[in-house]
Amino acid sequence: MFDCIVIGSGPSGISAAIYLKRFGLDVLVIGKDYGTLSINTKIENYYGIESIDGVDLIKKGILQASNLGISVLEEEVVKIEMSDSFVVGTSINSYNAKTIFIATGMKRNSLNIKGLKELEGSGVSYCAVCDGFLYRKKRIGIIGSGDYMLSELEVLRRFSNDLVVFTNGEEVFDINEFKVIDKVISINKENDLIKVNTSSKSYEVNCLFVAAGMANGTSFARHLGLLTDEVGHLIVNDYMTNIPGIFAGGDAIGGVKQIVKAASDGCVAAYKIKDYIKGL
Amino acid sequence: MFDCIVIGSGPSGISAAIYLKRFGLDVLVIGKDYGTLSINTKIENYYGIESIDGVDLIKKGILQASNLGISVLEEEVVKIEMSDSFVVGTSINSYNAKTIFIATGMKRNSLNIKGLKELEGSGVSYCAVCDGFLYRKKRIGIIGSGDYMLSELEVLRRFSNDLVVFTNGEEVFDINEFKVIDKVISINKENDLIKVNTSSKSYEVNCLFVAAGMANGTSFARHLGLLTDEVGHLIVNDYMTNIPGIFAGGDAIGGVKQIVKAASDGCVAAYKIKDYIKGL
Repeated sequence: MFDCIVIGSGPSGISAAIYLKRFGLDVLVIGKDYGTLSINTKIENYYGIESIDGVDLIKKGILQASNLGISVLEEEVVKIEMSDSFVVGTSINSYNAKTIFIATGMKRNSLNIKGLKELEGSGVSYCAVCDGFLYRKKRIGIIGSGDYMLSELEVLRRFSNDLVVFTNGEEVFDINEFKVIDKVISINKENDLIKVNTSSKSYEVNCLFVAAGMANGTSFARHLGLLTDEVGHLIVNDYMTNIPGIFAGGDAIGGVKQIVKAASDGCVAAYKIKDYIKGL
Repeated sequence: MFDCIVIGSGPSGISAAIYLKRFGLDVLVIGKDYGTLSINTKIENYYGIESIDGVDLIKKGILQASNLGISVLEEEVVKIEMSDSFVVGTSINSYNAKTIFIATGMKRNSLNIKGLKELEGSGVSYCAVCDGFLYRKKRIGIIGSGDYMLSELEVLRRFSNDLVVFTNGEEVFDINEFKVIDKVISINKENDLIKVNTSSKSYEVNCLFVAAGMANGTSFARHLGLLTDEVGHLIVNDYMTNIPGIFAGGDAIGGVKQIVKAASDGCVAAYKIKDYIKGL
């Protein structure tokens, strides 16, 4: 049982881990990719470092944590569940913790599909566990391609065996369901059915589950019932979400999207997490 | 006329200056010493830098700002005045700006003198401009030794020529007033007079002005009427003090006293300052 599992190995997650470790707490960091910073080439506005590549800074941070004895796992978190403690599931394993710090950055890989946003809550869902039951024994579509899609697919199989997987241009192996590899261009609703349109063909499903890219703050939020604002930032009060024990910081909670602010969030949140654990 | 004068060349001040400069604003940094960080030997919890000496980090920050074309002056700010714009006076010069960012760190050089705290507001004052008039033509004591003391002394001369300067162990030249160089050990009040006691002797004054060490957030606050909390942190709302155009961040506004939080304050405050200037 860890005191805290940090999800995300960017500035906010690593900064939190460094402070938690120094407070004498057992902390595990799980991070899959380099997030937004892997796109930035040069960073020249971070106090104390004149110029550095985004990827180099991330690597430096991970090394800094490792050198303090913090485990940083490169796994993809696909779910968080609550029982007596929190259970964080990756595509490989699952881990228990007293608290969680979500530092998954800003929403990424948002799909550029016409009609998707308009049909959210009206046939389009982002949470298999939440809404799968509504479409049991119906034809269920799911769009996505990574581990996160596979884990959502696993859930949907409980509700229906009439599944259509839209991989949106990616090849995905090892699934037996009907597969559409063409890029999806638009969706629309007709007679209570969702029409999923690729450049060559249209497919009809009763609903469409979105599980594209990595699970991020927004997707965790939908699964757990965490409150978000209208653009998907987690709503926090002193870095704690509406679920006691789940904290968040960095781009995931909004504010200026700057490295130094994300790192500071991690630091300040670590103080709050320490106090919260003390009070358990 | 600068867009912003940053007072303090530590993490918060320099980080603010970097962002302000990148927003295309004219910024001047005025900082006198290395503050709290000069006491820390090793810093090992700042994201992205595994280990660095406090003084080295400060120097690195100042160099980072200079390389961006930002002027960083090593002068001591002794007063801030308001007219059409803000006027920041140092011991050498004065500078005009549309906004001010106070990043002077935490209260330093607080005097360890028995009875001082108890007599605040009851004969002990931290602001010559505010309270000097109350003691006109009386015997006025002042305790301190640096440029800040000299600037407060200058103000007190307008109210009285019966002045006693307690240098508290430091030698101070070029003043004509009666001078006590012994270290002050305690003060107490007797018959409406303040008794200032050194190891060898006691001196009676009608009031005692404290102007020790550098002017910090607390002393600026008292001069300008900025609101502070009970421990002297400047009270801000979105980094702006109760005086429009005067912003503050870092240790001066409280919260966790960590470098990354101070640097983040500078960054986020810079956004607020930019927006404020745009609205002028």
